[in-house]
Amino acid sequence: MREREIPWVTSAPRGPRARRTCDTVGMRITVLAGGVGAARFLRGVKSAAPDAQVTVIGNTGDDITLFGLRVCPDLDTVMYTLGGGISEEQGWGRADETFGVSGELAAYGAGPSWFTLGDRDFATHILRTQLLAAGKPLSEVTRLLCERWQPGVRLLPMSDDTIETHVLIDDAGRSLVHFQEWWVRLHAAAPALAITAQGAESSAPAPGVLEAIADADFVLFPPSNPVVSIGTILSVPGIKDAAAAKTVVGVSPIIGGAPVRGMADACLAAIGVQTSAVAVAAHYGPGLLDGWLVDEQDKTAADDPALAGIAVRALPLYMRGTAATAAIAQAAIDLARELA
Amino acid sequence: MREREIPWVTSAPRGPRARRTCDTVGMRITVLAGGVGAARFLRGVKSAAPDAQVTVIGNTGDDITLFGLRVCPDLDTVMYTLGGGISEEQGWGRADETFGVSGELAAYGAGPSWFTLGDRDFATHILRTQLLAAGKPLSEVTRLLCERWQPGVRLLPMSDDTIETHVLIDDAGRSLVHFQEWWVRLHAAAPALAITAQGAESSAPAPGVLEAIADADFVLFPPSNPVVSIGTILSVPGIKDAAAAKTVVGVSPIIGGAPVRGMADACLAAIGVQTSAVAVAAHYGPGLLDGWLVDEQDKTAADDPALAGIAVRALPLYMRGTAATAAIAQAAIDLARELA
Repeated sequence: MREREIPWVTSAPRGPRARRTCDTVGMRITVLAGGVGAARFLRGVKSAAPDAQVTVIGNTGDDITLFGLRVCPDLDTVMYTLGGGISEEQGWGRADETFGVSGELAAYGAGPSWFTLGDRDFATHILRTQLLAAGKPLSEVTRLLCERWQPGVRLLPMSDDTIETHVLIDDAGRSLVHFQEWWVRLHAAAPALAITAQGAESSAPAPGVLEAIADADFVLFPPSNPVVSIGTILSVPGIKDAAAAKTVVGVSPIIGGAPVRGMADACLAAIGVQTSAVAVAAHYGPGLLDGWLVDEQDKTAADDPALAGIAVRALPLYMRGTAATAAIAQAAIDLARELA
Repeated sequence: MREREIPWVTSAPRGPRARRTCDTVGMRITVLAGGVGAARFLRGVKSAAPDAQVTVIGNTGDDITLFGLRVCPDLDTVMYTLGGGISEEQGWGRADETFGVSGELAAYGAGPSWFTLGDRDFATHILRTQLLAAGKPLSEVTRLLCERWQPGVRLLPMSDDTIETHVLIDDAGRSLVHFQEWWVRLHAAAPALAITAQGAESSAPAPGVLEAIADADFVLFPPSNPVVSIGTILSVPGIKDAAAAKTVVGVSPIIGGAPVRGMADACLAAIGVQTSAVAVAAHYGPGLLDGWLVDEQDKTAADDPALAGIAVRALPLYMRGTAATAAIAQAAIDLARELA
C-alpha cells in the first residue's frame, strides 16, 4: 500500500526451462520478507528453485488496525503475489478491485481515508479479524488464508505478538505516528527522528520461525527495506542470532545511491545509515551477512574495505520482468551455495 | 434480507400537499418496528404527519453476527429506507450494491453464504462493529449511523442488550437455529415448534424507549410480523406494560388470511395463532390494542366478538405506492387520535 513504480507485469515461469536452472530438490531456503520487493523477488526464487522448500518469514511491523479490522500489508502482498491475486499494476492490493466499502465508510465520515482498501482486500481483513477474535494466533490465521491462495511457500509471520513500527517525526512539532501514517499519509516527507518496533522487545518469534532458519540451507534477504522490513524482523528476539548462525545472502535495495522502490532513504536517514549499497551491507555487518548482491553500477562495493568479510557480486538488479527477477534470485542462490 | 415481493418503488412526498393532510405540529408518535413492512409504513407516517416527532423502536431480535460483524437487519432497513439508501426493488439492503466482499469470503470458503451482504451494506456493519467494540451501546451506535442517514425519525433499538430470536425447528430431527437461519436459509419451510427471544427475559429497554412510549400521544404497530418483530419488542421487560398504558393502533399484517409479505403464517403457527386479521388482533388483546386497521376484505372483523374492546376500521391495506401508504398511516393516526 505504499510505493509508486513503473508497472511490472509478469508471472512465474513454469516448465522444463525453469526446472533445469538448478537442482533444487530438497533444498531449504528461508527468506525474510517485506512487501512488494520481497514478493517479486520470491517469484524469482520460485522460478529459479521450483523444487526447493521455501519458508517466508514476513514482516508484521507494518500491520495496522483499521475500522476494527486487522490489516497485514506485507503478509498479504506476499500471499496475493505468489497466489496470483495481486494487482500487478500497483504491486499491492487485489486485482480487479472495487471500492464500495471504503466509499461508504467515507460517506459515514469514518476515517482514515488515506489507506486504500478495496472490497476484495476487505474480505481478507474481515476473515483474519474474525479468526483472530476466535483466539487463533496470526500464524495459524495466515496458514488458513494461504489454504486458499496456495502461494507455494510456507508463509510465517515473524511473530504472533503484536509489533507495530512507530515513527517519531518532526512535523511542525514532534509526534509519534504509526509507520503507515508516516509512509502512506505523509509519504515519508516529514523527517523521521526515530523508528521503533513497538512491542518487539518482549515478543517471541512465531512457531516455526527459528526452526525454519536453523533448518535452512541458507537464508536470503530480498531487496526489502533494511530498516522497517528486514530490520523489524531481525528485532524479534532470537531471529537475528538464528540468521547469523547461517549463510545469509542479501540483495541490495539500493542502486546507485537511491532506493529501487519506496522511500528506504528516509528510513536509513533515521538510523544514521547512508543510502548506498555499501552502507546497507555494512549496517547488516559481516557477522550477519555473508554475501551481498549489488547492481553493476555499484560494483566497486566489492573492493570496499567496509565490506571486508562479505562476498559481493555485481549484476543487473532491477527486477524488470520474469527473466531478470529469476536471474537475480538464481545469483543469490548460487552465491549462498558457494558460501554455505 | 428475507422476503420476495412485487417491486415497490416510491419515495416520501414533500411539500404543501402532504403538510395539509393533518395538523401534526408537536404530535408525538412512537412506532414499534420490524423490517420492510415497518419501514414502508413509516414512510407513510412521515408523509401523513410531516411535523410529528416520530420515535421508532426497532426490533433487534433478528440481529446476527456474521464474519465477526454485527448485523442489525431491521434497524438498517428502517434507516436505509427513510434515509434514501434502500434497494427499492428488494425492500432491504442498499441500492446499487456490489458484492466484492461476499464473493471473496465465499472464495475463502468462509460461511455462511445464505445471507446476502453487499459491499455498501458491509461498511455499515464494519463501522457498527468497530463502535460496539469501542464500548458504545447499540443505541448510541445507531444514533451515530443515523447522523449520516438523517431518517427524519428518532431510531432506537428496543434494547442495548443482546437478544436473538431462536427457532426450534423440526428439520429431520429437532434443532435450535438462529431466526435468520430458519427464515433466510430454510425459507421457514421447516415447521417451527417454538420461537424464543434468547436474552429478552433479562434485558432492559434501551435508554429512551420507555420514555418515548410514555410521552407519546399514541403508539402505532405497523404491519410487521406479530411474533418475531412486534412480539419480540414486546418481550423486553417494561415495553408491553408501557404500551398498554397508551392508545395503541395496529395495522394488520394479514389480509384475507395470508401475510402481505414474508412468512408470518409460519411464525403464527408456532405460537398457535391463526393466520387471520382477527386472530392477530385477539392475540395482542384489548388490554394492549385499542384500534386495529384491517383490509376491506376482512371488514367483518369489526363485528367479531373476539375483538370486543378493539375499534376496527377497514380500508385498503396494500402499501402500493406513496399515496396508498400515506392513506393507511393517516387512517392509523386518525383512529389513534379518536381513541386517545
